Amino acid sequence: MAFDQVNPPPRLLMGPGPVDADPRVLRAMSASLIGQYDPAMTTYMSEAMALYREVFATANQQTFLVDGTSRAGIEAALVSLLEPGDRVLVPVFGRFGHLLTEIAERCAAEVHTIEVPWGEVFAPEQVEDAVRRVRPKVVAIVQGDTATTMCQPLADLGEICARHDALLYCDATASIGGNDLRTDEWGLDVVTAGLQKCLGGPSGSAPITLSDRAVAVIEARRHVEAGIATDEDVDRGVRIASNYFDLAMVMDYWGERRLNHHTEATSMLYGARECARLLVAEGMAAAVDRHRLHGAAMLAGVGGLGLQVFGDLAHKMNNVVAVHIPDGIDGDAARGAMLTDYGIEIGTSFGPLHGKVWRIGTMGHNARRDAVMVTLAALEQVLRAGGTPITAGGGVAAAAEVYASEGA
Amino acid sequence: MAFDQVNPPPRLLMGPGPVDADPRVLRAMSASLIGQYDPAMTTYMSEAMALYREVFATANQQTFLVDGTSRAGIEAALVSLLEPGDRVLVPVFGRFGHLLTEIAERCAAEVHTIEVPWGEVFAPEQVEDAVRRVRPKVVAIVQGDTATTMCQPLADLGEICARHDALLYCDATASIGGNDLRTDEWGLDVVTAGLQKCLGGPSGSAPITLSDRAVAVIEARRHVEAGIATDEDVDRGVRIASNYFDLAMVMDYWGERRLNHHTEATSMLYGARECARLLVAEGMAAAVDRHRLHGAAMLAGVGGLGLQVFGDLAHKMNNVVAVHIPDGIDGDAARGAMLTDYGIEIGTSFGPLHGKVWRIGTMGHNARRDAVMVTLAALEQVLRAGGTPITAGGGVAAAAEVYASEGA
Repeated sequence: MAFDQVNPPPRLLMGPGPVDADPRVLRAMSASLIGQYDPAMTTYMSEAMALYREVFATANQQTFLVDGTSRAGIEAALVSLLEPGDRVLVPVFGRFGHLLTEIAERCAAEVHTIEVPWGEVFAPEQVEDAVRRVRPKVVAIVQGDTATTMCQPLADLGEICARHDALLYCDATASIGGNDLRTDEWGLDVVTAGLQKCLGGPSGSAPITLSDRAVAVIEARRHVEAGIATDEDVDRGVRIASNYFDLAMVMDYWGERRLNHHTEATSMLYGARECARLLVAEGMAAAVDRHRLHGAAMLAGVGGLGLQVFGDLAHKMNNVVAVHIPDGIDGDAARGAMLTDYGIEIGTSFGPLHGKVWRIGTMGHNARRDAVMVTLAALEQVLRAGGTPITAGGGVAAAAEVYASEGA
Repeated sequence: MAFDQVNPPPRLLMGPGPVDADPRVLRAMSASLIGQYDPAMTTYMSEAMALYREVFATANQQTFLVDGTSRAGIEAALVSLLEPGDRVLVPVFGRFGHLLTEIAERCAAEVHTIEVPWGEVFAPEQVEDAVRRVRPKVVAIVQGDTATTMCQPLADLGEICARHDALLYCDATASIGGNDLRTDEWGLDVVTAGLQKCLGGPSGSAPITLSDRAVAVIEARRHVEAGIATDEDVDRGVRIASNYFDLAMVMDYWGERRLNHHTEATSMLYGARECARLLVAEGMAAAVDRHRLHGAAMLAGVGGLGLQVFGDLAHKMNNVVAVHIPDGIDGDAARGAMLTDYGIEIGTSFGPLHGKVWRIGTMGHNARRDAVMVTLAALEQVLRAGGTPITAGGGVAAAAEVYASEGA
């Protein structure tokens, strides 16, 4: 069998993520490798920790990378925090709430959920009522759920959790970098992310940050593995049900002891570090504002094409919009035409929204004017070809108006 | 805070791994991204499956990648195979046997071990006696343990396990590509690997292959996650205690159903595919023979420097050698001099061998003549500077003799 070298077709990834990585991130990943305990390597690890503290807006010492996709970060957080039988509350407002539920169940936790319809978010009182009733050890919630495009306000939840002695865990994979996120100010105890959305990198590394309160819970379950433990290591508490995701050990690997655990995925570390380096150089507030601007232009543009937007606009993430597929249009065929004829990928959704909406992203490296404009131009042609009545130039004109009004 | 772009110091990584990636692998990883369900992406996934079937010497349909380091592959295999209370037998002949034990314990399995001293391997009868006594569901063993450099013969173990109705799981991370490995011929039910040794890539992707027998065990525990499952999906058996490592779901992602699970780490997929593509183009037997040749040259070279080799030479892996640190030499200072003055990394070891041996690798892209020769030349200088009596040129001469005798 003889396959050619990798040579992917040119694509503009304007779906809900993964999106195109910033070329500078991919170049960083092609740097030559160094050993795990090379001083240059441990310096890069420490720099990545410092950079992600800025990305997460936290002073948490324990801010590092889990070697896997964003889902690995979620599982590492939950399996390290939750012991069998622990109560966890998951407010579900889209598919990824179901994922948190599913992962918490596999940790043998006692999982309680509350739900709002897809396209809405929770009011703080709804969460507090449930916290009062369930008395959970952990409240686990998604900030931005790409399945619905909603962005859950978190500013009040940390205080509620602290008052009821619960830890607040947040999956910010879809939102971080494109929407305001303030780990310390909002009292988030654990936040996990992924590179493949607004951070502008490839999937495969999961940044995480843990508050001192969360670290204390995890350290109380410390079991250093045989062959690595020294006389000073005493087993404590109920052993975490995963070795790979045992954050007590991962912290010892990233920390001063540098205890051997996994072999750090060096190329992904280089990439994750570069994602954060570029964002921090831009400024986190500026990056969020960039996502707001291009998200607003895309929102106006799909409106200009006559498409109906899904969900509560007051709580839409900056970086993705969902639109109802117009009557008479075959959604998958239209997405296929976008990809095949124009080289542009847009997404569908899951569960109740599958085949009913398209999701269009403007995130990371693709949160930029030409990406917005060309997507709207192509979408107009595909809609017209599908028989949708449409104002010629209506999408790009509406987007251009947003840019003009903002002097962009 | 302002950090520069990644710019690692030039290093020649001649330790036990990770080693330098083949530059072609790093270039493949810098290719632009594509969507998860892009036909180009699913084609690359299918090609990676086909290529790793050749690497593993198997016809197993279920041959794919776990998105994490080699340790993630081990945990995915064990947590998917083992239910709480299942008996597992781990023959331990080095540090990584302890790791299998540790991971199996976290799966709540009933773990039984047998041990031989570091530097030795098991005879088939020793394993069979233990299998007869323990009657395990799974026998979990490492093929090559870099901690000791030993390579466990596996040819007889598959037959023993089949006869006693046990599944045979093998971690081939350190050995694959550099030592003979025949999944189907030897009756190995599950084999996992990593890229960072003889496959010539970075850590961060774990190739895995599963026999039909292993797949049946895992499929009997099938629980598709909420939001993804359809009416045809019926929960079966004891749910696997991890979502990320649930191989039933990962198989559905790589298989024809293409059910959403994690977001494939595209850059790592490109890299893993290129590692296998290069090896398959070379020919697996030729790659093993290359590792044998350069391993023999390094072995002769360290002998020519007067160093004593550790362990049973009849069972040494081709790709790494351990040597006793000579009396009077500070092992860590000498390794530091190798790194700082010559840009060459060699390793120490773990547990009973920590600080007593150096481990020198010749693997992947670094299994080549100039890497062997320059390492020996530098090591001679460092030993001399440390006061070890040494024959000038003795290391490189002995290695050159091996090359000459083989016409290389």
